Amino acid sequence: VSRTILEREISAQPDVVRRLISRETGHVKAIARQLGGSFDYVMIAARGTSDNAARYAKYLFGARNRIPVALAAPSLWTVFQSPPKMGRALVLAISQSGSSPDVIAVMREARAQGQPTLAIVNAEGSPLEEVTDHTIHLGAGEEQAIAASKTYTASLAALALLSVSLMEDEASGTELALVPTWMATTLKMNEGILEQADTVSQMRHCPVIGRGYEFATAYETSLKLKELVKIAAEPFSSADFMHGPIAIVERGSYVLVVTPPSRFREEFMDLILRLKGIGARLLVVSDDAEMLATADFPMPVSAGVPEWLFPLVSIVPGQLLSLGLALARHLDPDHPEGLTKITATW
Amino acid sequence: VSRTILEREISAQPDVVRRLISRETGHVKAIARQLGGSFDYVMIAARGTSDNAARYAKYLFGARNRIPVALAAPSLWTVFQSPPKMGRALVLAISQSGSSPDVIAVMREARAQGQPTLAIVNAEGSPLEEVTDHTIHLGAGEEQAIAASKTYTASLAALALLSVSLMEDEASGTELALVPTWMATTLKMNEGILEQADTVSQMRHCPVIGRGYEFATAYETSLKLKELVKIAAEPFSSADFMHGPIAIVERGSYVLVVTPPSRFREEFMDLILRLKGIGARLLVVSDDAEMLATADFPMPVSAGVPEWLFPLVSIVPGQLLSLGLALARHLDPDHPEGLTKITATW
Repeated sequence: VSRTILEREISAQPDVVRRLISRETGHVKAIARQLGGSFDYVMIAARGTSDNAARYAKYLFGARNRIPVALAAPSLWTVFQSPPKMGRALVLAISQSGSSPDVIAVMREARAQGQPTLAIVNAEGSPLEEVTDHTIHLGAGEEQAIAASKTYTASLAALALLSVSLMEDEASGTELALVPTWMATTLKMNEGILEQADTVSQMRHCPVIGRGYEFATAYETSLKLKELVKIAAEPFSSADFMHGPIAIVERGSYVLVVTPPSRFREEFMDLILRLKGIGARLLVVSDDAEMLATADFPMPVSAGVPEWLFPLVSIVPGQLLSLGLALARHLDPDHPEGLTKITATW
Repeated sequence: VSRTILEREISAQPDVVRRLISRETGHVKAIARQLGGSFDYVMIAARGTSDNAARYAKYLFGARNRIPVALAAPSLWTVFQSPPKMGRALVLAISQSGSSPDVIAVMREARAQGQPTLAIVNAEGSPLEEVTDHTIHLGAGEEQAIAASKTYTASLAALALLSVSLMEDEASGTELALVPTWMATTLKMNEGILEQADTVSQMRHCPVIGRGYEFATAYETSLKLKELVKIAAEPFSSADFMHGPIAIVERGSYVLVVTPPSRFREEFMDLILRLKGIGARLLVVSDDAEMLATADFPMPVSAGVPEWLFPLVSIVPGQLLSLGLALARHLDPDHPEGLTKITATW
């Protein structure tokens, strides 16, 4: 029996992604055909967890589609009332609720400027889709826990589907279809985390390190640790971390490392050995046995996940860890203090 | 007598900015005339402190010039070897040394793609300027302390000069010329910080909160606290912080708030009162007497600085605080452990 709503929503992710792919593939292909060639870059408007999905898009569209991505600062559209001229941009909104007023403001202005617009949204019939040309519905079902889980991975899947459709790459589509299986395997591999989390429950502060595609995972894992367990978890790119912020790590410090599956292997092994040398306590999310063997707290990822889809799977152990820590500390994981579902920022 | 190199470099900032403006204004105007109309958006390649200058550019060019800004993920150009197609972008590098290999790689590719390129750089005759069409030299003199100070504010001044030149706005040029005076006043107002820092020297963790233009100040202040004092200082936008991460604040937590000078006033007063209610210890950088009065540790900014130039001045108290804390903790502020001057990332 699932004890919490959040645990049910984390466990539902393989099904949510499977349904999304089977229902939306044709629709997203049609959108991609209509959009093809109409833009030079993608501007993304998003907040919170959706902003972390946008970080994934930056590497995904950049490395795979060779399309630059700019992350909008929504306050330019709202508080400053001085919207940038978005000439030759595809303007993309990512929003679970479809109700964030500042994300809506960006899309409204994009349309007024005559730019193509696309929304990735979970709620049906939201105000957001009224102001966009195209909408991809996540169809994840209502997310009842305040902290996002299934809508995050579903947003990544929608972005991956869009990327594949823009490339018209059937082989990649076949890889994408394997994500639900990799997610399910990873859930299974980490089912012990909920019990084991109490062994690291003294953690109060924790840098979370990724790179490339896994920068998004570092951000989203950090956000879950903050929201659910009040841990001051700061995300870093390993490239930046090594050249300065590593100074904050001392003997006994907790550090969570998410290792990318292919590139950066040597760099991450160096980083891990350096952190071990300092005497840090390491939590490692990885598909690599050697990396996992260095960890005080290993969090395995299914073998075989390609780099460009790794964030859809590598977030799962961090979600479970955050949930496990919340339970260990007798915090309510479904309704964390001070957290609201819709980010009504102006 | 200045006790450290860093203190001398922090104190030199008014002169550095004054010299930059008087020497480069004509040159930057000429660059702006040549560039005018040749791009739809700006893509910036930068690392570390220069990346924080890029965050300033995002609001500056966005709000004042209505030009969107994308921050490049340099690894796409290097490790992934899959550079995005930068059609209709002005590609801008910001680098103190002009020697970061990944920033150079972005510029080399931009030129190969036929994009207009511009570098903002301190070192003379660096490899970076060999691969760019235009170069703005900061002329800040060699920065001997490992942690950047004067090259950061000089980079902001160069960006402000570029923004003004693209707008052809004489009145704004007059405001920019007042920055050295505001900086000098702010240095004077905060000269006590070096002695008072020991009253907050127990600080180990500290969220640093800004918004809009002051998001850059929050990032750069955090970076100085990490580099110089090993404090786990994480930057936040107040918009994001209020909707989740505020959960990490407890009675006795340190929180540093940088309040923007005009917009967001009400929002920041709400935030400050909420933090006081929790029992946080507040460090406040502000030009507003009422906000400063709420602080356990007030760090005043000169009156009269307009919003778009505020980051050039509001970083000064954070630089002095970081230096003061380093001295209080008997750390070497000129050569912090584990820090290197040139970020040689691939």
